[in-house]
Amino acid sequence: MKQRKTIVSSSHRFTRKRSIKNGLPPGTLVHIGDESNKKVQISVIGYAPDGIVERQFEQIDRYLDSPCDGSVVWVNIEGVHDVELIRTLGEQHAFHPLVLEDIVNTVQRPKIEDYGDYLFIVLRMLRPSEDGIFSSEQLSIILGPDYLFTFQEGIAGDTFDSVRSRIRSGKGKIRGMGADYLAYALIDAIVDGYFSVLEGFGERIVDVEEELTLTPDQQSLHQIIGMKKEVIYLRKSVWPLREAISFLERGDSLLLHDSTRLYFRDVYDHTVQVIDTIETYRDLLSGMLDLYLSSLSNRTNEVMKFLTVVGTIFLPLTFLVGVYGMNFKHMPELEWQSGYYILWVVMIVTALLMVAYFRKKRWL
Amino acid sequence: MKQRKTIVSSSHRFTRKRSIKNGLPPGTLVHIGDESNKKVQISVIGYAPDGIVERQFEQIDRYLDSPCDGSVVWVNIEGVHDVELIRTLGEQHAFHPLVLEDIVNTVQRPKIEDYGDYLFIVLRMLRPSEDGIFSSEQLSIILGPDYLFTFQEGIAGDTFDSVRSRIRSGKGKIRGMGADYLAYALIDAIVDGYFSVLEGFGERIVDVEEELTLTPDQQSLHQIIGMKKEVIYLRKSVWPLREAISFLERGDSLLLHDSTRLYFRDVYDHTVQVIDTIETYRDLLSGMLDLYLSSLSNRTNEVMKFLTVVGTIFLPLTFLVGVYGMNFKHMPELEWQSGYYILWVVMIVTALLMVAYFRKKRWL
Amino acid sequence: MKQRKTIVSSSHRFTRKRSIKNGLPPGTLVHIGDESNKKVQISVIGYAPDGIVERQFEQIDRYLDSPCDGSVVWVNIEGVHDVELIRTLGEQHAFHPLVLEDIVNTVQRPKIEDYGDYLFIVLRMLRPSEDGIFSSEQLSIILGPDYLFTFQEGIAGDTFDSVRSRIRSGKGKIRGMGADYLAYALIDAIVDGYFSVLEGFGERIVDVEEELTLTPDQQSLHQIIGMKKEVIYLRKSVWPLREAISFLERGDSLLLHDSTRLYFRDVYDHTVQVIDTIETYRDLLSGMLDLYLSSLSNRTNEVMKFLTVVGTIFLPLTFLVGVYGMNFKHMPELEWQSGYYILWVVMIVTALLMVAYFRKKRWL
Amino acid sequence: MKQRKTIVSSSHRFTRKRSIKNGLPPGTLVHIGDESNKKVQISVIGYAPDGIVERQFEQIDRYLDSPCDGSVVWVNIEGVHDVELIRTLGEQHAFHPLVLEDIVNTVQRPKIEDYGDYLFIVLRMLRPSEDGIFSSEQLSIILGPDYLFTFQEGIAGDTFDSVRSRIRSGKGKIRGMGADYLAYALIDAIVDGYFSVLEGFGERIVDVEEELTLTPDQQSLHQIIGMKKEVIYLRKSVWPLREAISFLERGDSLLLHDSTRLYFRDVYDHTVQVIDTIETYRDLLSGMLDLYLSSLSNRTNEVMKFLTVVGTIFLPLTFLVGVYGMNFKHMPELEWQSGYYILWVVMIVTALLMVAYFRKKRWL
Amino acid sequence: MKQRKTIVSSSHRFTRKRSIKNGLPPGTLVHIGDESNKKVQISVIGYAPDGIVERQFEQIDRYLDSPCDGSVVWVNIEGVHDVELIRTLGEQHAFHPLVLEDIVNTVQRPKIEDYGDYLFIVLRMLRPSEDGIFSSEQLSIILGPDYLFTFQEGIAGDTFDSVRSRIRSGKGKIRGMGADYLAYALIDAIVDGYFSVLEGFGERIVDVEEELTLTPDQQSLHQIIGMKKEVIYLRKSVWPLREAISFLERGDSLLLHDSTRLYFRDVYDHTVQVIDTIETYRDLLSGMLDLYLSSLSNRTNEVMKFLTVVGTIFLPLTFLVGVYGMNFKHMPELEWQSGYYILWVVMIVTALLMVAYFRKKRWL
Repeated sequence: MKQRKTIVSSSHRFTRKRSIKNGLPPGTLVHIGDESNKKVQISVIGYAPDGIVERQFEQIDRYLDSPCDGSVVWVNIEGVHDVELIRTLGEQHAFHPLVLEDIVNTVQRPKIEDYGDYLFIVLRMLRPSEDGIFSSEQLSIILGPDYLFTFQEGIAGDTFDSVRSRIRSGKGKIRGMGADYLAYALIDAIVDGYFSVLEGFGERIVDVEEELTLTPDQQSLHQIIGMKKEVIYLRKSVWPLREAISFLERGDSLLLHDSTRLYFRDVYDHTVQVIDTIETYRDLLSGMLDLYLSSLSNRTNEVMKFLTVVGTIFLPLTFLVGVYGMNFKHMPELEWQSGYYILWVVMIVTALLMVAYFRKKRWL
Repeated sequence: MKQRKTIVSSSHRFTRKRSIKNGLPPGTLVHIGDESNKKVQISVIGYAPDGIVERQFEQIDRYLDSPCDGSVVWVNIEGVHDVELIRTLGEQHAFHPLVLEDIVNTVQRPKIEDYGDYLFIVLRMLRPSEDGIFSSEQLSIILGPDYLFTFQEGIAGDTFDSVRSRIRSGKGKIRGMGADYLAYALIDAIVDGYFSVLEGFGERIVDVEEELTLTPDQQSLHQIIGMKKEVIYLRKSVWPLREAISFLERGDSLLLHDSTRLYFRDVYDHTVQVIDTIETYRDLLSGMLDLYLSSLSNRTNEVMKFLTVVGTIFLPLTFLVGVYGMNFKHMPELEWQSGYYILWVVMIVTALLMVAYFRKKRWL
Repeated sequence: MKQRKTIVSSSHRFTRKRSIKNGLPPGTLVHIGDESNKKVQISVIGYAPDGIVERQFEQIDRYLDSPCDGSVVWVNIEGVHDVELIRTLGEQHAFHPLVLEDIVNTVQRPKIEDYGDYLFIVLRMLRPSEDGIFSSEQLSIILGPDYLFTFQEGIAGDTFDSVRSRIRSGKGKIRGMGADYLAYALIDAIVDGYFSVLEGFGERIVDVEEELTLTPDQQSLHQIIGMKKEVIYLRKSVWPLREAISFLERGDSLLLHDSTRLYFRDVYDHTVQVIDTIETYRDLLSGMLDLYLSSLSNRTNEVMKFLTVVGTIFLPLTFLVGVYGMNFKHMPELEWQSGYYILWVVMIVTALLMVAYFRKKRWL
Repeated sequence: MKQRKTIVSSSHRFTRKRSIKNGLPPGTLVHIGDESNKKVQISVIGYAPDGIVERQFEQIDRYLDSPCDGSVVWVNIEGVHDVELIRTLGEQHAFHPLVLEDIVNTVQRPKIEDYGDYLFIVLRMLRPSEDGIFSSEQLSIILGPDYLFTFQEGIAGDTFDSVRSRIRSGKGKIRGMGADYLAYALIDAIVDGYFSVLEGFGERIVDVEEELTLTPDQQSLHQIIGMKKEVIYLRKSVWPLREAISFLERGDSLLLHDSTRLYFRDVYDHTVQVIDTIETYRDLLSGMLDLYLSSLSNRTNEVMKFLTVVGTIFLPLTFLVGVYGMNFKHMPELEWQSGYYILWVVMIVTALLMVAYFRKKRWL
Repeated sequence: MKQRKTIVSSSHRFTRKRSIKNGLPPGTLVHIGDESNKKVQISVIGYAPDGIVERQFEQIDRYLDSPCDGSVVWVNIEGVHDVELIRTLGEQHAFHPLVLEDIVNTVQRPKIEDYGDYLFIVLRMLRPSEDGIFSSEQLSIILGPDYLFTFQEGIAGDTFDSVRSRIRSGKGKIRGMGADYLAYALIDAIVDGYFSVLEGFGERIVDVEEELTLTPDQQSLHQIIGMKKEVIYLRKSVWPLREAISFLERGDSLLLHDSTRLYFRDVYDHTVQVIDTIETYRDLLSGMLDLYLSSLSNRTNEVMKFLTVVGTIFLPLTFLVGVYGMNFKHMPELEWQSGYYILWVVMIVTALLMVAYFRKKRWL
């Protein structure tokens, strides 16, 4: 049995503040999320079938001034706490204020919104973390005809390295396709990340289950309840994503090419599989809770039976020896030569009969 | 750990009287709600991109006599218990009697109704209150082409100050948009208010959860049950709102401009998020109830084990000393010089063996 | 605390016989419902904007021979056990045999059926009754172009007096509108009656809840279970009604005027509110059951702790005094001058230590 | 209280073999169901408005050679285990092999299938049986333009006698209508049979409920669990029927005349009522299980309280008498003239105080 | 009672690794599934109404080079771990890379995808296995106009022998129909396999249920929980299949002939029946869990009652004999000649009264 990590997942994960925004006009940019002092990192990759340009920035610039013809430009912004930067960027590209507002407000539900010139997609990026649970951050995507903006919270690094190296190496179809294929590749990487989280989770379930069979204790219960909470959080993160990807699969927007629809169908399939697995885990955890509770009842029953057996054997015997401890003047048995021995025999026989009775009743 | 506030939310919140209306013809105005002696306050704000006029009234007047051209007039009525006033107002503007009836009957479900010339919207305004729960009142909105009437119960002050100051200052787009945008701004403010309530609620959940882990008692149970009731009330208040706002988002009425649709989509998103959070809280509270119940079973089990251990150790020993308290004439052990000491040794060994046995069984 | 009425609602309400009809051809009239010897009462009200005629009958007649021009005739039949009368009436007006069959078979689900020339509506009329529960009877409505038939079981009086007096006094719009408005007015009166029943129910819930907090006992449980059954019955009576009224609101039949659609929307709203309340009560009752069960576990736990404390204190002490009740020849302590007092000290100290231990464990 | 029949409904009802068909090509006729040696009975009734012909067969014949003009022919086959007969019949009338396969495979779900020339309908016929449960068999109907085939398993007799006598007597409309009306009449008879089963079931629920209130024991539990299983079976049998009858009500097939649609609507209504009742029973049974479990907890609580009271009164007293049974040399109380009486007073007072304490705590 | 097999179904079945694929571009072929060293077996059957050709391969070849005119070619590949082979095959026939990816990744949900020229179908093949549970493998089908590829994991042999022999013998319609009919025949064989698994499962349920009634123990609980998990897995495997087959039934693709639609409707029906059975088993298992838990409560109650009876009888008696074991100087009863006998009488009467009392209370 592996060394178990204790999950003391409190409900804090579910209670992020967003009321500080109350009373502000729509489109007001207020960062809601973990505070960060890190400098915002901006990396731009422009690519075409025959070339690629990469640049790093720490401030606003004209990223989309196309590095080469027929190219796709991917601007990745790591850190959304610098509200000024986001606002400038938004004005430069005429993004709707509500889009910018949602980018800096990192407690969005996954969703997709069609603004005509561009699609705005929000989803959650999950990564297994060391404490056995997972970390979660918001990723916002703006998909234009030949550009793609991605906004990460930048807490724990992204899962896009594989996509970057595919662009750099020129392997696969990615360099020959449009920005919508890039969006697909990123979303696919994120959904793949869900599988990693779920696998870690599945292992934890198997561990706790094993433990539950061997030595069920209060801690197992806390583990189960903790995992149930994580599952609630996972559901919240993934269910709405399904709807969003279904929009991409239907391909109602002109920004989506027919050739990428098949790929979105594939990632849709994966999302459904993720949801399936989450629901399964929920069922398994409910089963484990049932198991825990009935094990508990069972053990209480065991304990009770033990006490009852001990009590039922010794209470009558104690009564008997009490009888012959009485000081009545006239108690004939006391005078018998072998009274003491006879009593022992009586007591032992009584005890044995009781044990036999309990055996028959399966209490022993 | 913070000082806990006890929630003794009874079910009274769910049982407002409305049967006093039985038997009256439709459109009869009968105030249903908390009694109030406060004078009704009427405030009128007329605004256009280039100007604003504010006035206060305590009685009926011709509010809509437009203060300036191309303007929007917002008439806010605080207090719906003055049935006469509502009736006069309704006749002046030819509002349907059923609309007036719903305004003064403050136990409506959130809804939207299209009367052609105007939209009638009912929703519930929630505010965190000091006793840790929240207060709730009905807000009715009549949205016309260039005017907006809002009817509050006027129990605890509204959440519209931010909107008023945006109108006064002329910041943002509000002065340049129509009455539908004003409706949006107010609804948005109300939905923002839900987030405040939910955050307070979330903190309470975290508190009670912590307490539950440390010292689960009957009071925690009452807290959980009380919070469950609050969640039921919240669901009742917010679920139908979603449908109503979805109507506004679709923009089927001529009173809604295309440019505000995006904003209604935004507030729709927030409503869904509110619902999501409510459902999550419901799940968390169910989990807490499970935790409480199984902790209870666990403690009963602990108590039983303790009793069983004590009983199992002392019942046999008491029997033994009873044996040598008997008065049989012939009991050889009693004559032995070191009988007493031997018995002590026997008893101590017996007790130690039992303790070892219980250790092995993990009952100690 | 109010004097509590005990609900011993058995499940009899759910098991009305209707198998006596088995094997009969469709359209065979067989009365299913409570037996009655009362004479059937037939009252006819004909009204037009400028006049009203009322008549009472005890037998079949030509009720619709119009008392004045442009009038609406409302024929109210109290008692459906006189199968012959219903058949004659049906033949006179050419109602479909299946309609007549449903009228006398008083275990229908609420429904609406469009027969072209007339609409057939079935619903349940609920009235709070003295034993704290409610009584229920079937009301069948046949709505024609200018007439309206209502068939009551006639068990406990109807709730239509308010409608009658509105017709008589000529107040409101009722005299100026058609038969469909009359149907609306009656249905509205019935739905208003649901609110009365629900309010009484709500008060009962609050009462039982209070009691549950103070002295939970087996009787509270029976109250909760009894109320749950009532809620099941209410749901059964009201859910299908929603669908029926939704048909009226859509106004697909020529018998329904556009001007009454708004009113049917209003009564639809009320029905939804009734359903909402019923669902809320269901949730509250589930919460109360949880509360009851965990209170019970809690009390068992309390009792166990008490027994364990008493046992743990006295079993060792009884053992100790048993020791010095033994009759060994050689027991040095017995000879000590102050042995008895020392033992008392030891026993009292032991007991105090145990009490302290239980205090620490919060068992005392 | 009536004599209770014990339901030991095992789950066998749910586990009929049908894997013996695995690997056979579609349309292979294999009888699945209870074995039977009975000779297949074939009865043919041909009728027209002005006449009727009845014949009995034991083997295949040309049943449809019309006995009179404009007539409807109803061929009723009792027993589907004679696979050869079914095949011959099927070939004679060119029924699709899949239809024949479903007829002999008696574990079908209720369904309707449109084969153009004829409709194929499968449903389950339920009959109350003597052991308090019900028996169930499959009825397959083939409805053609002017003929109707019915295939029964023939285990326990059908419920069609009332239909037959209506045809024979010529009462009602049945002789004047087509084969679709005959199908309606049969289905109606079957659905009426469901009501009989449900009424018997409802009485059983009331019985067990009563018993549960008086003397809840393990047997009541088995009754409840057994009835829950029956309800599961009933749901399985009736839910899909609703869908099938809804097809008939919509009347999409040319085989269904407009004039019978009203009748199918009626039987649809009845089916919905049956489903309603089944769902209600399910809820009632859940409530009874709750009641049983909490009664059990309650009784455990009672028992515990009793033991605790007895223990708490006698353990201290036994300790006290133990004290004065000690053999210390120096125990002054023993020498007192009235020591013995004083002790009795002390013990009685102690016991009375404890009883008072338990009274206050409501444990006695 | 049959010899019971213990199900220790852990949750491992639900946690297959697929994260090794993370970061790879779409269409990358990575085998996910059980490792295998077996050589891939490829068998090709070409058939036409008047002839059949069978061949075996161990490597890639031009399988579709048609063996005879108007024929259908079925290529069955057993083993999908040889990624190179799959890739070559895919390129040869221009299958989409995503299709190939799904074939080698054996943790797909059942689904159907329309690629225009061919349909891609994934489903799970279940087979009862010896340990009482079932084994499961993925089957991928590519259905073209005149060919059919099937890809099995090849773990435990397929269930297609019956189909093969029907092709060989030329019995039934199979040789005369197209590739879509072959697809039907295979899917039908698989769904038939589900029935075998379900029947084995049903027997297990009946066994465990019986055991539960006789001797409920912790092992029964593990059996129930284990079977619940299996049911979860079955649901996961079958629910999505329904949707896929519904696509085939609707026949939207040109690859599906009208004449096979009836057959797909038949297999659709079977799938619905499988789902029905699975849901029923779920309900039965829930009922068994309820039964187990309440049996447990019941037995705890029994044990408690026993202990209470024993305690209540012997504690007072022990007290009594303790009284007369005291050493007070002045205890008149001790001097009485028949004191000892009187006490016995008192004690026996007391005991009998208590027994009578417990009888009345039904504790004995």
